[in-house]
Amino acid sequence: MNIILLSGGSGKRLWPLSNDIRSKQFIKIFKTSDGDYESMVQRVYRQIKTVDPNATVTIATSKAQVSAIHNQLGENVGVSVEPCRRDTFPAIALATAYLHDVMGVPADESVVVCPVDPYVEEDYFEAIKKLCDQASKGEANLVLMGIEPTYPSEKYGYIIPKSDSETSEVESFKEKPDAKTAEEYISKGALWNGGVFAYKLNYVLNKAHELIDFTDYHDLFSKYDTLTKISFDYAVVENEPKIQVMRFSGEWKDLGTWNTLTESMDQPVIGDAVLNNTCEGVNVVNELNVPIICMGLKDVVVSASPEGILVSDKEQSSYIKPYVDKIDQQIMFAEKSWGSFRVLDVEEESLTIKVTLNPGHGMYYHSHMRRNEIWNVISGEGVVTLDGKKREVGVGDIIEMKAGTKHTVTAVTELKMIEVQLGREINVHDKKKFDVADR
Amino acid sequence: MNIILLSGGSGKRLWPLSNDIRSKQFIKIFKTSDGDYESMVQRVYRQIKTVDPNATVTIATSKAQVSAIHNQLGENVGVSVEPCRRDTFPAIALATAYLHDVMGVPADESVVVCPVDPYVEEDYFEAIKKLCDQASKGEANLVLMGIEPTYPSEKYGYIIPKSDSETSEVESFKEKPDAKTAEEYISKGALWNGGVFAYKLNYVLNKAHELIDFTDYHDLFSKYDTLTKISFDYAVVENEPKIQVMRFSGEWKDLGTWNTLTESMDQPVIGDAVLNNTCEGVNVVNELNVPIICMGLKDVVVSASPEGILVSDKEQSSYIKPYVDKIDQQIMFAEKSWGSFRVLDVEEESLTIKVTLNPGHGMYYHSHMRRNEIWNVISGEGVVTLDGKKREVGVGDIIEMKAGTKHTVTAVTELKMIEVQLGREINVHDKKKFDVADR
Repeated sequence: MNIILLSGGSGKRLWPLSNDIRSKQFIKIFKTSDGDYESMVQRVYRQIKTVDPNATVTIATSKAQVSAIHNQLGENVGVSVEPCRRDTFPAIALATAYLHDVMGVPADESVVVCPVDPYVEEDYFEAIKKLCDQASKGEANLVLMGIEPTYPSEKYGYIIPKSDSETSEVESFKEKPDAKTAEEYISKGALWNGGVFAYKLNYVLNKAHELIDFTDYHDLFSKYDTLTKISFDYAVVENEPKIQVMRFSGEWKDLGTWNTLTESMDQPVIGDAVLNNTCEGVNVVNELNVPIICMGLKDVVVSASPEGILVSDKEQSSYIKPYVDKIDQQIMFAEKSWGSFRVLDVEEESLTIKVTLNPGHGMYYHSHMRRNEIWNVISGEGVVTLDGKKREVGVGDIIEMKAGTKHTVTAVTELKMIEVQLGREINVHDKKKFDVADR
Repeated sequence: MNIILLSGGSGKRLWPLSNDIRSKQFIKIFKTSDGDYESMVQRVYRQIKTVDPNATVTIATSKAQVSAIHNQLGENVGVSVEPCRRDTFPAIALATAYLHDVMGVPADESVVVCPVDPYVEEDYFEAIKKLCDQASKGEANLVLMGIEPTYPSEKYGYIIPKSDSETSEVESFKEKPDAKTAEEYISKGALWNGGVFAYKLNYVLNKAHELIDFTDYHDLFSKYDTLTKISFDYAVVENEPKIQVMRFSGEWKDLGTWNTLTESMDQPVIGDAVLNNTCEGVNVVNELNVPIICMGLKDVVVSASPEGILVSDKEQSSYIKPYVDKIDQQIMFAEKSWGSFRVLDVEEESLTIKVTLNPGHGMYYHSHMRRNEIWNVISGEGVVTLDGKKREVGVGDIIEMKAGTKHTVTAVTELKMIEVQLGREINVHDKKKFDVADR
């Protein structure tokens, strides 16, 4: 099976766990059988690999998420990076070209496109495999998944099938309706549109060549910023007469808000927290290393991270976005491909950060114009390069870098450092990168 | 007026703002007219000095609070330090001897003893002045304040006066009653015992000499740990026939729990927090530098500090103590006489701390056996002494101290440093102090 996972969104609705560079799909919130926690993207990836160990998985995403994807899924997962946001048709065309031209998938094979963040069980990916197989038959150019509705939701688009058989041609598509209209649709046998569809690679490649002048993946990538913003629905689905839909009746949840997310938590508390016996329906997700005590609360979600603290009635939590939008905050924590960082202290003319590098990983070779930096190694071993000179470092070593010094560090074992930045204009944009070859 | 303020307790009931070394009286929670925040002890001290600018104020307390007292009230306030806890009679005897022998207050002057943490207005200290004046007359050996009850409280002891005049002899004392008994007392004209009483110094000094063999303050201090634990009520009040009570009917609150404390907050929020419009009766005290968002909460208190986070129904908040007792936590923040520190990061073999020294102040000259330390100066100027050698330091300077190195730093201007501690057994007790003369 070939599968493209669409990974988008900055996910402010799950603040303080999600932020501009950490989307909700990267939050480690689901307990695995061995007691660790995994994120939505890790859960989905694991489920796919369980259903089909040979699945070719490609994640279509923006530049900002690449580090987090490699940090969580390793280096072997395929990533199709959109150089900029150009809506779903260009994104799917680019990912399809990537599968064909980079991953070497033959043009007559089928692929399924699926959001990265549904909360599902393995039967969902079994159904996706069937979708792929159905697309391979060539009876239709597009095969959609139709999810059997459990209530007249106003949040989803609807698919009206021609028949009630497992696989049916599509009669029509309906935009998100009000509850009453949704009930009418459901009485006619309508299904939710979960944004999942399969096709043969050459079908979308041909559509792309019709609409865009390009030769291959690399050419499409290089001119991506010149493409017109257009949705896959508008560019392809609405004009396609040969569409089928396959029913899916298993568990399927869209965990977009704290309210729905907490419903899927196996236990009320993640992290260090105590709930007294007068708490009811309380969920806590605490990423800080200090305890939370909750007393006498009902249907409340509490979440604390280096970015902030949310305390909300569960119903109310759906309305969080405008409040988060108003917060103009520095990123306090991030996972990068090489490890992670956390801001420990912010002063007017200094910034103190804890940097953790994974074994074998290094930062970009870079310099700053307007700030000096000091590294205090607190654990592990590594190799530091300063203006071309290499030096082995370990616990207790101090590395001083004046503004202008080219520097990098590579971890031999897991390497932790306290980084002190000093200057009047400390800014993430004050960074010049150099080739690794220059080291 | 001479006044002894009794400052005790570790105050876990206002966790996470109070902890083993920061009692509730030091939490800056009351907005002053110039927009700053002051603590209970600062508020009370300011009120006393407004009512009587020449008042001699002595704070009777334990060693653990001395730094915080000087940090908040300056160096000029009198402090009578109990070398260990020995109940109220030894503590009051020691403070009285301190007033006489150290502060030079004549033995025939009167003094009033008062808890450090009542939430009151200036009329309370006017009443206290009258109590002092009444004690000076010598009509009685002890003059108590009786607070006119506003409801049949079960939390206070009661004083039954002989008459309903402003100053009356005491008929009897009653222990904390149940609500029904309290109603009976009140119908007989009983008053709350707020723990405030005045006497002439020589009265308590004589009682002390009767019960304890000592010459003066210094002698009493040196043998303090050998004294029997006994309360002032038991040792003095219960055996004293000549006792008067003076009525007080002004505002008086005991802010011992989050429920009562939040009632006295002038505004719902202290620190960085947003309440949406569906919140009712919500108070937030946020000492962290990240925002808190509250949505759809009713009668809830939220408090966040470097020690932890409390989210509690206001009523329930009175029952917090056992939950805090269960938390075995490192002190994450403290005010010292020389400034303050905050723990930024805890690892198995390292600890990272932000140290702020007030101008002109320095640490003890000290060394550690089992840990190396590094100071990264991030703002200000100071003078560092390492094994007797002095050195001026400023922003960007790095000071390395191997285990065994004697070290200290004195701030010239406000000095901020990131201190990295490295070692296998990092422990607050690994500290050897040296005389300043050794520097």
